[in-house]
Amino acid sequence: MNITSKDGHVGHISQQFNTELDEIRTHLMAMGGMIEQQLKDAMIGLKTGDTALLQTAIKADDQINTLEMHLDDQCARIIARRQPAASDLRLVIAISKAVADLERMGDEICRIANSANKLIADFPGEGYLQVRHIGDLVATMVSDSLTAFARYDADLAYEVAKRDDEVDKEYKFAMRALVTQMMEEPGTIQQCMHIIWMLRSLERVGDHAQNVAQHLIYLVKGINVSHSSVAQMHATLDLNN
Amino acid sequence: MNITSKDGHVGHISQQFNTELDEIRTHLMAMGGMIEQQLKDAMIGLKTGDTALLQTAIKADDQINTLEMHLDDQCARIIARRQPAASDLRLVIAISKAVADLERMGDEICRIANSANKLIADFPGEGYLQVRHIGDLVATMVSDSLTAFARYDADLAYEVAKRDDEVDKEYKFAMRALVTQMMEEPGTIQQCMHIIWMLRSLERVGDHAQNVAQHLIYLVKGINVSHSSVAQMHATLDLNN
Repeated sequence: MNITSKDGHVGHISQQFNTELDEIRTHLMAMGGMIEQQLKDAMIGLKTGDTALLQTAIKADDQINTLEMHLDDQCARIIARRQPAASDLRLVIAISKAVADLERMGDEICRIANSANKLIADFPGEGYLQVRHIGDLVATMVSDSLTAFARYDADLAYEVAKRDDEVDKEYKFAMRALVTQMMEEPGTIQQCMHIIWMLRSLERVGDHAQNVAQHLIYLVKGINVSHSSVAQMHATLDLNN
Repeated sequence: MNITSKDGHVGHISQQFNTELDEIRTHLMAMGGMIEQQLKDAMIGLKTGDTALLQTAIKADDQINTLEMHLDDQCARIIARRQPAASDLRLVIAISKAVADLERMGDEICRIANSANKLIADFPGEGYLQVRHIGDLVATMVSDSLTAFARYDADLAYEVAKRDDEVDKEYKFAMRALVTQMMEEPGTIQQCMHIIWMLRSLERVGDHAQNVAQHLIYLVKGINVSHSSVAQMHATLDLNN
């Protein structure tokens, strides 16, 4: 379909359209960068007992929500005014879905920072190795899902999705250990519960990073893999490794 | 914008467009009905110890995921082929967002049924009053959010959003009671953990019902209230009660 302005500048309008598409991609990446920073602040805050850093992570959520609403609005405007088709439409849809997942990551990281705050207040100390280990795995997933999106790299997106299984395994292992600890030392129950909530939220952040990776696969390959197993994705993407 | 078919039947095409919009609304309601049934099965299964009913709730998730992918595809096709504007576009956007929330409800209810299964296997018995109480509150929220969507009823949607605060209060109260119980009777820790996961998932189902209600408010009023407090929503909607 041709889009023509009142004065007939088809080329100019199309250029403006490209600029608008670039703009939402750039905003998505900016939002992703905020999430990466928020997660880093929450994890370093937990590790070092720095409550000011945890507050920064909690406050970041407002900014992230504002950016989400702005991006949502931009996507709806582009659809209404530009009537994108084929790969342009897939780009707008994939971005608007990725935005929703990033916003939910922001919520979960905010919960992590809140739990870390309570944990530090009730049980001063540093460390929490099991949280930091899964935190590192999840941070890499988040960062790689954004890189995959920036580079249209479906292979990297597949790697991210694959790594979610690893996070789930580590998560279940840590959970079992925490429940055992609570049974053996009931005095640590409250402390363990804070850690359990943090792990749970980290595991959810990993799920959302997997979703972002799957939206990118939809964008590049035109295939909806949102409910595919890793093996199904491997077959769909026709990978060799 | 006019949409004209090759043979010039503007009216016919527009009628077909209406049919397509009706179809996605109908499919959304069907998906909502499946979620209501899934939640009912999970809660009755827990109450009566009926593991077959819990299996039905778990299996329903596949069907719900298939319907989600189908609806997603329908929404993308309508945008690509019909290029909807104004309220038609808002309808398609609101439906595609509601679909995503319903799908996540399905995931959470599946988790509830899984936890209920483990709970019943490890600790045969019936009851679990605190889960059933919050389960009833959440089931009403889900059902009312769908009714609000079916009737374009922004006032009812506001009521649903308001009730989420009540669920959150009950949830926090139940959580504190469970942590206290674990500390006083460490022998019940595993049992309590199953209940904690169920409550957590129920609370999340309530959040998603609130989201569905907020998508309806966006559809009817054209205002994004996804990050508004209940008081802000009240002011935005200009309500008297």
